[in-house]
Amino acid sequence: MTETTQKHQSTLDNAIKALHGRTFFAHFPENPSPDIYGADADRLGREKFEAHRNQQFTELLQSEPEQWVGQEESPYEQQPLGVKYPFFSPETLVQRAQKAFDQWRKLKPAQRAALLTEALDGMRDRFFEIAYATMHTTGQAYMMSFQASGPHAADRALEAIAAGYEEQTRFPEETRWEKPMGKYNITLNKTWRAVPKGVALVIGCSTFPTWNTVPGMFASLVTGNPVIIKPHPKAVLPIAIVVAEVQKVLAAHNLDPNICQLGVDADNRLITKDLCENTAVKLIDYTGGSQFGDYVESLKGKTVFTEKTGVNSIILDSCDDLDKVAQNLAFSVSLYSGQMCTAPQNFFIPETGVKVGDQQVPYEEVVQKIAAAVTGLATNPKAGPHVLGAIQSSATQERVQQLALDGGRSILAHGTVDNPTFKNARTCSPSIHEVDASRVEQFSQELFGPIMLVIKTKDTQESIRLAAQLAREHGAISCGAYTTDQEVKEQIMDEMSLAGTPVSFNLTGGIYVNQNAGFSDFHVTGGNPAGNASFTNPEFVIKRFTWVGFREPAV
Amino acid sequence: MTETTQKHQSTLDNAIKALHGRTFFAHFPENPSPDIYGADADRLGREKFEAHRNQQFTELLQSEPEQWVGQEESPYEQQPLGVKYPFFSPETLVQRAQKAFDQWRKLKPAQRAALLTEALDGMRDRFFEIAYATMHTTGQAYMMSFQASGPHAADRALEAIAAGYEEQTRFPEETRWEKPMGKYNITLNKTWRAVPKGVALVIGCSTFPTWNTVPGMFASLVTGNPVIIKPHPKAVLPIAIVVAEVQKVLAAHNLDPNICQLGVDADNRLITKDLCENTAVKLIDYTGGSQFGDYVESLKGKTVFTEKTGVNSIILDSCDDLDKVAQNLAFSVSLYSGQMCTAPQNFFIPETGVKVGDQQVPYEEVVQKIAAAVTGLATNPKAGPHVLGAIQSSATQERVQQLALDGGRSILAHGTVDNPTFKNARTCSPSIHEVDASRVEQFSQELFGPIMLVIKTKDTQESIRLAAQLAREHGAISCGAYTTDQEVKEQIMDEMSLAGTPVSFNLTGGIYVNQNAGFSDFHVTGGNPAGNASFTNPEFVIKRFTWVGFREPAV
Repeated sequence: MTETTQKHQSTLDNAIKALHGRTFFAHFPENPSPDIYGADADRLGREKFEAHRNQQFTELLQSEPEQWVGQEESPYEQQPLGVKYPFFSPETLVQRAQKAFDQWRKLKPAQRAALLTEALDGMRDRFFEIAYATMHTTGQAYMMSFQASGPHAADRALEAIAAGYEEQTRFPEETRWEKPMGKYNITLNKTWRAVPKGVALVIGCSTFPTWNTVPGMFASLVTGNPVIIKPHPKAVLPIAIVVAEVQKVLAAHNLDPNICQLGVDADNRLITKDLCENTAVKLIDYTGGSQFGDYVESLKGKTVFTEKTGVNSIILDSCDDLDKVAQNLAFSVSLYSGQMCTAPQNFFIPETGVKVGDQQVPYEEVVQKIAAAVTGLATNPKAGPHVLGAIQSSATQERVQQLALDGGRSILAHGTVDNPTFKNARTCSPSIHEVDASRVEQFSQELFGPIMLVIKTKDTQESIRLAAQLAREHGAISCGAYTTDQEVKEQIMDEMSLAGTPVSFNLTGGIYVNQNAGFSDFHVTGGNPAGNASFTNPEFVIKRFTWVGFREPAV
Repeated sequence: MTETTQKHQSTLDNAIKALHGRTFFAHFPENPSPDIYGADADRLGREKFEAHRNQQFTELLQSEPEQWVGQEESPYEQQPLGVKYPFFSPETLVQRAQKAFDQWRKLKPAQRAALLTEALDGMRDRFFEIAYATMHTTGQAYMMSFQASGPHAADRALEAIAAGYEEQTRFPEETRWEKPMGKYNITLNKTWRAVPKGVALVIGCSTFPTWNTVPGMFASLVTGNPVIIKPHPKAVLPIAIVVAEVQKVLAAHNLDPNICQLGVDADNRLITKDLCENTAVKLIDYTGGSQFGDYVESLKGKTVFTEKTGVNSIILDSCDDLDKVAQNLAFSVSLYSGQMCTAPQNFFIPETGVKVGDQQVPYEEVVQKIAAAVTGLATNPKAGPHVLGAIQSSATQERVQQLALDGGRSILAHGTVDNPTFKNARTCSPSIHEVDASRVEQFSQELFGPIMLVIKTKDTQESIRLAAQLAREHGAISCGAYTTDQEVKEQIMDEMSLAGTPVSFNLTGGIYVNQNAGFSDFHVTGGNPAGNASFTNPEFVIKRFTWVGFREPAV
């Protein structure tokens, strides 16, 4: 154990430093280059993924499954993957977690942090396997599957480990308290413990099975809580591999693998609510739709972290180069077919148009330029399929196909995207609708998928007012704004900050509003209804334990 | 403003250092000595208090009161104080707070911290006036009134200011993020803001009108939220003085005094629920009974910090000197007549007695020794009145007088305490009842006041099990334990830590389980139903704001 702790100390120290510097930092390289990950890494990862098909996933160290279940399906093939996972009843999962709790909580934070960092090294060795598993469960394109489910997720996990380790060691384990009373001193020896809250549950989503799961998972683990991972039934394999790597490290250190369990739904039995409502479950991390998220938040006696849905806005006021802006926005709305929590949906454009340099470009010209950029990207065979990926769920595809906004105008109809590698891929290019600014009810809900709403406003003031109102009332996770006016910029910062929404200004080129950098960008602020699971500010970890002190007169 | 900021920087730096060292630290001396506070300080403070009687409290800078109200009564005199306070409707209070919000939130954390520290200096100059105001509203004895409402409260306030300042400055205001992309770098300028949540409400209690109010008050203020202080209608004057001092500093710096408002109940209209349910109110700090506390915690869309009721236990296993233990416990149960949230109530004693050195002292002898110590203290004219003080509310006095536990045995009947200074003081010496360990329902609720329950257990194992169970299920804020056995001690620490309850071991002499040192002891851990308002760990301040980031390509 001491060896493992020493081995990872510098990684943790660097990660903590990065958290506070918030300059660029990545412990896990995002480039899937053979120079970094090895000449055969991609091929071997693909082969390992292929070997999982139609097999039982037997790597988990959870004994005596009640049955083997699985319902994943590749959005690229529209065929079942056939992987089967061990099923355990919620009672069994919770009982095993409770049994494992004592062992885990009695380790020092530094020991837990080191073991979990060791597990991330194991995850790193399987980034390519995880990437293919992610492609064929979520529909993400190869590059995003690799980056988001591999290095970016591992960095977010390391961030949670580092933050948890830092917060648990910010106060002394023991001290001598000596109070002068005039003629004598009262002297007490004091000690403190960071006491974990208990059994933790992490509920995953179908689109980012590792990226959205590992922060809560590693945050709960590093603070001493045993964790049950309940993945979305359609996206299990990527996170099952991560859980297996954690269990491997636990077992290698003679610890109970049930400290971190995978708990899947059976094909005919959904277990999430049973787990949520179990009184032993004290912590819940949830990513997914707002309806279930609101239910999770309403549970009593639980500490809950959510990332629910929101409506993300783009405010167009003025810019230097409208073509670059249109290309940037077209990419943002197309990336993984809009199936990102950070994807923009509502584009606020003044009816008077957008100021470009010294010229005022009319509204209609702006809209058509964006539409042309979206079409250009979707129909570019070298880019389109790699940016758009596939649609995870047929429900999303149907939503795009059937969308008709009462009183709205279709600016661009959705289309298919030819994927030369996967002829059966479930694809859909973005559709663009125009909605009048007065019809707030039409653009105040999340329309998950490749859907872009252009909202014609009176002026930028109305754009800002509506974007802030939507974020405050319905939640938002990102916001993009284009303005060359310093006063407008400050106003947007002020109003969106009160709505708890980060703003990216004037993005063009290879950086997009959807992107979110570990160790630098706080993800989901807790300041609006979109959720409170802020990756990773101190609140995300300190609510998982309580400080308890002990004192005794010094002898 | 710059001058004020510089003036208090070293105070803040020292306070932050103390928070992390957790050794003895006090910025405000607790000794009401003329050498420290001036030869005339006590006399002047008393005169200032006397001058408030039957007058309007006109120091507040809140304009246009709707009426003047007041219903305080001295527990020492059982006569109305006659002080009248300005009344404002909840809507007026909230509207004024909202109006003041912009000005306050736009200051830097360092500026707010300095202004609030300046206000504590003003409070310091009125410690004696506050002490007499506290005596004649709460019934605390002189020394406690001075210490708890003056220096101890001010230190807890400084702790909240320091913690809030530290947390808001733990991440950079701006940084340059440069990501290497191979052939080029992406460079973003990033900035972050700690964004306050909005209007804050602090609901005070009748027994510790400043000590329990200032932590939430200053924590919300330092993080940029305008605050409405809603004191208990029977204990307004001590905190009204503090609010006036804050307003004075605000006005002196050309800031809206409504950043910190006093909002009292009218004699015929209680305003707390209206304030709680106002959608603009985002933060609530509450101290008081569990029933109303549970209501506050159930409100949606609010961040809530509570200190409710709990049942505090003493576990007697073994000790070196039973007489000293009995004296210590008698003092703890008598201090302010048991009207402290940290006062012990349930004394778990094994039927086999307590091991003292090498001898086993029988149960009955232990109980009688404690009873004798309680009687000795209450009937000692030089100590009794100064330790017991007076009973704040007639409801508490009636509870003690009418207490009859079904199946229980009275070990010591309550009595009166002669107070030579205040012949009409509402007093009551502690009563002791014996309850069988099987009758959990009889000792699982808080019996506020000078009531001590001796619970006869099978052995120390049962004592620990019951104390931990009560804390987990009904809450606890303190726990005392006496054991010379290292294994028993570790077991108590382990089980009480899981119940979120701090433990004081083997206290004898001049230190008591009720006492709680600023900058060292975390008060209320959040780990059990007694509340989550932990003075002052980071959670107590960071939940009052959210981090919001902004980014833009570097030019």
